[in-house]
Amino acid sequence: MLWQVILMNVLTKIISMKKGLPDIKKDFSAWYTQVVNRAGLADYGPVKGTMVIKPYGYQLWENIKEIFDKMIKDSGHVNAYFPLFIPKSFLAKEAEHIEGFAKECAVVTHTRLKSDDGQGVIVDPESKLDEEIIVRPTSETVIWSMYKKWIQSHRDLPLLINQWANVVRWEMRTRLFLRTSEFLWQEGHTAHETSEEAKKETLEILEQYRCLAENYLAIPVFTGLKTESEKFAGAELTYCIEAMMGDKRALQAGTSHYLGQNFAKAFNVTFQTKDNKEEFVWATSWGVSTRLIGAVILTHGDEKGLQLPPKVAPIQVVIVPIVKNDIQIKMIEDFIEPILKELKNKKIRTHVDWSNSSPGYKFNDWEMKGVPIRMEVGPRDIEEDKVVLVRRDNKEKTVVTKTDSVNRIDMFLNEIQNNLFNKALAFRNNNTHIVSNYDDFKKVINEGGFVRCGWNGAKDTESKIKEETKATIRCIPFDENPDELKCIISGEVAKHEVIFAKAY
Amino acid sequence: MLWQVILMNVLTKIISMKKGLPDIKKDFSAWYTQVVNRAGLADYGPVKGTMVIKPYGYQLWENIKEIFDKMIKDSGHVNAYFPLFIPKSFLAKEAEHIEGFAKECAVVTHTRLKSDDGQGVIVDPESKLDEEIIVRPTSETVIWSMYKKWIQSHRDLPLLINQWANVVRWEMRTRLFLRTSEFLWQEGHTAHETSEEAKKETLEILEQYRCLAENYLAIPVFTGLKTESEKFAGAELTYCIEAMMGDKRALQAGTSHYLGQNFAKAFNVTFQTKDNKEEFVWATSWGVSTRLIGAVILTHGDEKGLQLPPKVAPIQVVIVPIVKNDIQIKMIEDFIEPILKELKNKKIRTHVDWSNSSPGYKFNDWEMKGVPIRMEVGPRDIEEDKVVLVRRDNKEKTVVTKTDSVNRIDMFLNEIQNNLFNKALAFRNNNTHIVSNYDDFKKVINEGGFVRCGWNGAKDTESKIKEETKATIRCIPFDENPDELKCIISGEVAKHEVIFAKAY
Repeated sequence: MLWQVILMNVLTKIISMKKGLPDIKKDFSAWYTQVVNRAGLADYGPVKGTMVIKPYGYQLWENIKEIFDKMIKDSGHVNAYFPLFIPKSFLAKEAEHIEGFAKECAVVTHTRLKSDDGQGVIVDPESKLDEEIIVRPTSETVIWSMYKKWIQSHRDLPLLINQWANVVRWEMRTRLFLRTSEFLWQEGHTAHETSEEAKKETLEILEQYRCLAENYLAIPVFTGLKTESEKFAGAELTYCIEAMMGDKRALQAGTSHYLGQNFAKAFNVTFQTKDNKEEFVWATSWGVSTRLIGAVILTHGDEKGLQLPPKVAPIQVVIVPIVKNDIQIKMIEDFIEPILKELKNKKIRTHVDWSNSSPGYKFNDWEMKGVPIRMEVGPRDIEEDKVVLVRRDNKEKTVVTKTDSVNRIDMFLNEIQNNLFNKALAFRNNNTHIVSNYDDFKKVINEGGFVRCGWNGAKDTESKIKEETKATIRCIPFDENPDELKCIISGEVAKHEVIFAKAY
Repeated sequence: MLWQVILMNVLTKIISMKKGLPDIKKDFSAWYTQVVNRAGLADYGPVKGTMVIKPYGYQLWENIKEIFDKMIKDSGHVNAYFPLFIPKSFLAKEAEHIEGFAKECAVVTHTRLKSDDGQGVIVDPESKLDEEIIVRPTSETVIWSMYKKWIQSHRDLPLLINQWANVVRWEMRTRLFLRTSEFLWQEGHTAHETSEEAKKETLEILEQYRCLAENYLAIPVFTGLKTESEKFAGAELTYCIEAMMGDKRALQAGTSHYLGQNFAKAFNVTFQTKDNKEEFVWATSWGVSTRLIGAVILTHGDEKGLQLPPKVAPIQVVIVPIVKNDIQIKMIEDFIEPILKELKNKKIRTHVDWSNSSPGYKFNDWEMKGVPIRMEVGPRDIEEDKVVLVRRDNKEKTVVTKTDSVNRIDMFLNEIQNNLFNKALAFRNNNTHIVSNYDDFKKVINEGGFVRCGWNGAKDTESKIKEETKATIRCIPFDENPDELKCIISGEVAKHEVIFAKAY
């Protein structure tokens, strides 16, 4: 029985390895699912739509977290932790906010289980709560209820707080990393004396998100403003970074909201100004989530699987020893020891794969996992005092002397980081089309790509286009130039130049 | 109206500062509450029993986290993330486990809100879940349901996974950091080929907990085994670190469980052994939580407030400039600039308090916050090229030359770290009594302290003592010596030497 199961497992594994991934050009969606699975990034949990982030995927998240945590701390923010649970009434205090989140809330109603003869364990009806509790979908309401206690005077401002936390939004159609019922994120919540200062904060954080995406994840992004219908429920203005995925669809990778005084008014948070007046506090909130991992996969992945930007890759170099017997193992161990030491000194994240699989299996496996550089070392290499370096991005093999190897790796890591960004940038630019009539618009949207065009600024044209083409306005980019443009559908004078695309 | 509120706030602050803390010797409990509040560590959230960890408290947690995260990674563990939500049926799969957690579970039953004319927002009855979901009180069940998928062969073992997460246990009587409905922790869950290996892991982690408590938090601990009635619901053996708080009560600061095959059997997790047999997997789990912050406060605090061990203190040195005018500010800025640079190079966490309060107010405030060293700098010090260092632990003032200051700080930080530990150790030893008759036992327990004595190993004696004195067996210490001891209550031959105390 056990043997059959194991045999089946091994066979399935071999067949699936042989079979390769689904064709990335024909079935991007199946390709994505397989890569997440085979690279060991994540898995579904037992409750529908929940996600288990496996160690390899979690290390990637830890690396992203560490980079961004440093950025916000360097710019004066501090971390704190607010409760998971929010009273139902709090969520309802801001009208647009509750409207936006009501349909996807996990609601806690009881606090005890009890055993029931025959039925096993049941919820104890006597433990019913007077007021239901919502598992946070985002923390504006619980945080502003605390700010009410903490803010009295202009001396208490600005308050620049961030938290790393899990949030829950009940989703029907889920996708690992991209849309799950629970996900991990950071959410910043700041309070300011003036509208100007809050707006400045919103944009400074957006710039940090751009930097994180482009300089670390190697994902080029458009930065800009969301339209009224696409903005965060409770915000005055929502700014975003928008990226193009490998299937030419858009992915919203981070948002930064100027909240005006909406939450301050909902929770009656006022402060004494410098000239002794009482005023409502001005606010921002902003977040990026484990969705960024999805963005990395969808931006850089190829027919061989994942490709990780070196700056966030859990393993930057994998060493695959080519060995036939124990004597060779010892030889290779001795040979690579100084290389490993040097790599460690340079803080290059390295793994040596001494597992029992064949070299060919290992090559495929580490390519699937997107490790930027593979180093091959065999007995013949040792004789010649050389190693083989293989780049994941362009598949180039380079034979280098042992002495040169670490410097070469260092150089390659930089080149790969830049190369991934430049490739993604070229891809996005090649697939972003300036279009001036609706037929061309539909053609681009159908075939895949971003459209830059004029829009009259009206909700009805936006929703009509969405209905007819499934494309939404991803953002009004900062570098828009609406002069002389016409609205792509109504032909009226354009109010904005916008970016349209089908989105995740 | 606003003015009145602010005036009241200021007055309350002044009065409470003047009034000082509640007497630590007479009302330890009120003292604790006030310290947590005034040091800015935490606050209660809006839902009963939930906790907001404020930035200063959270930095402390981040420092503890970073230290322990490194320890477990260095010993081969990896982090991952498992879902917050557990199907009710999963929790019930291990009989003792559900028995232990049934009475404190937050239960999710619905997934939508809707607006109801007149009543505001209500839970949408149509969104009722078929199977209720439990918010994790601990993650054994959800993790072992995944291990079922991930473990087939001995080659998949050991699996050494940890997660940093929030968990929920519905508590009636809550206390910030010590007992809250939601808290933060790490939970390790490992899977092994043999019972021996799992037991070894359990003890290795316990040793890491001891190291964390003693070498970083400066809290001396007893290490040992829990009795049957005090062990974790679902464990075969529970080991613990137990510390003595300032009121001579015990606090369980960390536990490491040997789970045998209990969860493997509940979730049918078997593996193919090296000699091709099918066997259930052996397991451990272990955790420490934000409770450790409570332990730090309760161990080291004094009549002036918090005392933080330098190794985890968010601020190790606070610089208080003594200034009367703008010219002096500039002088002091120039004077301390090279000191700040040197402190930064040595990675000593420093804060300069330029706020508007009086020096006296600042001294009290930073003592309340437990900062190990205060540096005072005034115009006269500048003239003499000196600074004043004041230690939080022994209140000693030292005048040192500017050149010597950083080395002196470095030395003092080490001394303070050791001093806090040694003081706590002496206190614990002085209040741990070897006792051989029940009258003396009751006297010690009543007056406060730990008792070391013989116990016959029976549940009924243990529960009788608990009933009569409120003391519980904190652990069977590793260094027990039951030979020639008699059971403290029954007079029978002792099976174990144990440590009794009233506990948090």
